[in-house]
Amino acid sequence: MTKEKLRVIPLGGLGEIGKNMMVLELPRDMIIIDAGLMFPEEDMLGVDLVIPDISYIRERKKKLRAIIITHGHEDHTGALPYVLRELQAPIYCTRLTRGLISVKLKEHKLLKEADLRTVSPGEKIRLGPFQVEFVRVTHSIPDSCGLAIRTPVGTIVHSGDFKLDHTPVMGEPTDLPRWAELGREGVLLLLSDSTYAETPGYTPSERVVGESLDRIMATAPGRVIVSTFASLISRVQQVIDAAHRNGRRVFVTGRSMVDNVQMARELGYLSAPENVLAPIDQLSHMRPHKVVIISTGSQGEPTSALVRMASRDHRHIKIAPGDTVVMSASPIPGNEMLINRTIDNLGRLGAQILYTRIADVHVRGHAAQEELKMVLSLVNPRYFVPIHGEYRHLMTHARLAQAMGLAQENAFILEDGDILELDEKGGKVVGRVAADHVYVDGLAVGVNQVVLRDRRRLGSDGIVVVILTVDKHSGHLIGEPDVVAKGFMDTEDAEEILDKARKQVTRALKRANHHSDWAEVNARVRDALSQYLYQETRRRPMILPLTVEV
Amino acid sequence: MTKEKLRVIPLGGLGEIGKNMMVLELPRDMIIIDAGLMFPEEDMLGVDLVIPDISYIRERKKKLRAIIITHGHEDHTGALPYVLRELQAPIYCTRLTRGLISVKLKEHKLLKEADLRTVSPGEKIRLGPFQVEFVRVTHSIPDSCGLAIRTPVGTIVHSGDFKLDHTPVMGEPTDLPRWAELGREGVLLLLSDSTYAETPGYTPSERVVGESLDRIMATAPGRVIVSTFASLISRVQQVIDAAHRNGRRVFVTGRSMVDNVQMARELGYLSAPENVLAPIDQLSHMRPHKVVIISTGSQGEPTSALVRMASRDHRHIKIAPGDTVVMSASPIPGNEMLINRTIDNLGRLGAQILYTRIADVHVRGHAAQEELKMVLSLVNPRYFVPIHGEYRHLMTHARLAQAMGLAQENAFILEDGDILELDEKGGKVVGRVAADHVYVDGLAVGVNQVVLRDRRRLGSDGIVVVILTVDKHSGHLIGEPDVVAKGFMDTEDAEEILDKARKQVTRALKRANHHSDWAEVNARVRDALSQYLYQETRRRPMILPLTVEV
Repeated sequence: MTKEKLRVIPLGGLGEIGKNMMVLELPRDMIIIDAGLMFPEEDMLGVDLVIPDISYIRERKKKLRAIIITHGHEDHTGALPYVLRELQAPIYCTRLTRGLISVKLKEHKLLKEADLRTVSPGEKIRLGPFQVEFVRVTHSIPDSCGLAIRTPVGTIVHSGDFKLDHTPVMGEPTDLPRWAELGREGVLLLLSDSTYAETPGYTPSERVVGESLDRIMATAPGRVIVSTFASLISRVQQVIDAAHRNGRRVFVTGRSMVDNVQMARELGYLSAPENVLAPIDQLSHMRPHKVVIISTGSQGEPTSALVRMASRDHRHIKIAPGDTVVMSASPIPGNEMLINRTIDNLGRLGAQILYTRIADVHVRGHAAQEELKMVLSLVNPRYFVPIHGEYRHLMTHARLAQAMGLAQENAFILEDGDILELDEKGGKVVGRVAADHVYVDGLAVGVNQVVLRDRRRLGSDGIVVVILTVDKHSGHLIGEPDVVAKGFMDTEDAEEILDKARKQVTRALKRANHHSDWAEVNARVRDALSQYLYQETRRRPMILPLTVEV
Repeated sequence: MTKEKLRVIPLGGLGEIGKNMMVLELPRDMIIIDAGLMFPEEDMLGVDLVIPDISYIRERKKKLRAIIITHGHEDHTGALPYVLRELQAPIYCTRLTRGLISVKLKEHKLLKEADLRTVSPGEKIRLGPFQVEFVRVTHSIPDSCGLAIRTPVGTIVHSGDFKLDHTPVMGEPTDLPRWAELGREGVLLLLSDSTYAETPGYTPSERVVGESLDRIMATAPGRVIVSTFASLISRVQQVIDAAHRNGRRVFVTGRSMVDNVQMARELGYLSAPENVLAPIDQLSHMRPHKVVIISTGSQGEPTSALVRMASRDHRHIKIAPGDTVVMSASPIPGNEMLINRTIDNLGRLGAQILYTRIADVHVRGHAAQEELKMVLSLVNPRYFVPIHGEYRHLMTHARLAQAMGLAQENAFILEDGDILELDEKGGKVVGRVAADHVYVDGLAVGVNQVVLRDRRRLGSDGIVVVILTVDKHSGHLIGEPDVVAKGFMDTEDAEEILDKARKQVTRALKRANHHSDWAEVNARVRDALSQYLYQETRRRPMILPLTVEV
């Protein structure tokens, strides 16, 4: 042990689900773990995606030694195209993760200058005073890793996203013996996945889904359409295997599914017996009970292949009675309405739909309570920080640790931006750094709160524009003000009210003696109109007074 | 049997959850069952509530004999204040339901002219050729009923909202013997609640919650704050009873909770031992472990008592470590985000929070699959229409009936507006009537789709207003156009883009030879600007060109 201090600073993923990013900082060196994005919540109107605020890193970018990516999901990789515009550092990840990142960086025309380095599970890399070991874990994407990070202050274990699947359908199980070994050697701090900390018991093995798929394909009277995440390569493999066993051919639809299947086959992560996969234009020649279709759209995404089928808008696939649709995914919170609409529309077309509430067609990718306790017990850390979860998940996970005997003061419930400082004397939260949401909207990074507040107001009650024409010499109003509304109320009803509103504005302005101070005039118009419209309609549209000087 | 035809027309609640309304029509007579509202879905921006379209009834209002209300929840009663402005008919319901409707009609100043008539469970009323019998069921509100309706065509059984709780905490169990008796006599059509048709097994009894509340109140170190639906009178009774058994006093907060507790006590539906209930201003004198608080806010409603506590904005209650908050309700779909935020914020203040995912603090009010099958088996109808549910719930419920031997062609999956016609020869769907959503926004009934589409556009990308000043004699543009944006992008970035946009507009107008056709000029401005802004920002704000003639 030295007298050095280590700072652990979450910049995303703690207190929210998604946009995971963690900073480990020593006096002269810094590494980042993960750089993910988050999809916008329902009140972030018009926002395309949300990424972490990296201003703390930006101000110290000379210290940055590396960006470590634990696995290839978007909530761990999706901010890379934005982060790499400002930060230069090698990116360390496993092979499939690298494949997925490459596809993304290519889209953003950033692949050439990126320094991607492949690491195998079990491998150790040296980054200045940090030594980072990749430790194999099971998750809903192959090639996932947790990390064991040696620092001058002690060993830090980062679980990544994980579950303990002892019979994974692809690759090997979580390297529990290594966690145990590290635990015996002594671990200063455990950072562990809290996404399903509320769920009692064990997460079932991926094999459960394979058995269901077999049963479905054996008994379905017609085509079987399986919709899942494009990154869930092991699920795609299970679908191909089950199709093969049941004498069905497999067709792939949806851009990201087609791309990922191709990439995974090239890298050897997906294998298909000859003649099982077939091009989609051959679909029309097949008898229905010989067909399996793998599709995007498990989250009800409006432009996805499955949603196009549900709205009779898919070029190759017309849903008909006899079709069986399998939703092999769980809803990401916030997507429930879109997913339910898709299921309902498929049902209206006569399909039978199987989804998690009524059939065993998906298992979660994250550890439940008994698995979390197992890892806590094997790693046996001195300090514990629950990561990856909303506040109640972190609380519940901390409570699990405390129930196992961890001292209450040694479990830190951190949120994004908190600085946890560790040295030989112990650990404590010493301050906060900026860690707000950064909104990406169209081509712009960084839409601000004012814009979002305006959008919420506009979206809820619409806008009323008032145009005042003014003589620039005398400062007097010329003619009547003009009032135009959008998103406010039905044209018929609005006409009468807007006509009266015009008179209210004229009256409000008459009471003013001189019109030299236009800020004051505008405020007066806004107040008078706002009050009048609320009284008549109980709504508060945005009032936008505009002055035209002639 | 006569040669009369009976029409069964759902106007709400089939294909969606909420705004339940069903029409039964004979050649010269008509009755309505339920008149509910629905809370807006997330894409119905700014809408306060949604009610059924009653234009079909309005055109035949002389035939209307009665409005029957099965129970006092808003999704069965909430449209009454709007319906009663247009339709005159007596309202038949049980006593507690009448109490709840009265509170609502009083708010809308409609109580005096309303003709409310109290019916007891088991009672039969004659309405022209209809004879309506109220049959007791258990649900998450006392005094709930299903209906047995004798018509010249045959007997129709309507389940209302129900579950089969054999040990209800208030009132008596569902009158299963009566369903069985009706089944033996012969039932033409069963209309049965599908809300939880996806859920296997049995819904647990309300008693389960009582046992949890007892355990929580016995062991909680400080105050216990229970949040539930204000209409869930039996839950409130359980809280009062558990508090009394554990030597705690009960305080009530939240306007609708205070109102309903008062009404239910006056009508005798709620009983409290002396000195258990106490006024909230005495709360500060109590020791924490002697306190229970009953509160609104179980759905995270922004102005509710619990949400005010979570945001440190409640006048009497400051959340502190040691407090235990019980969320004794399940999330209504769409409210998950608000509820989760409330839980997280309470956690940040140090409270322990118990909710359905982690504790037995709520049971559903609707029947699960085994209960639905029990009712199908006892009532043994010739025809079956699953009611109250989204399309997939109706499908699943129909499939349950078919698995029990009902012929596929005798189960009708209807949606709002479908006309099912029944006579001695059989039943079939003969057409559709208007049954769209009617949106209530502020004081207006009937916001149209154009307004909602405009709001979605405004909310997602904002608005850009372009003002063209034109000489009314020459038709020439005076000066530069003015461009103002709201909700579009950050002011700093916007300035440069809007400046260029102004030049684009000028250029687009120069290409036009004369400016006499203003519709054409506006279209030209809109096109040029829309294209330019999309290219620069990948956004599509609403473009509003306004012409000022001087």
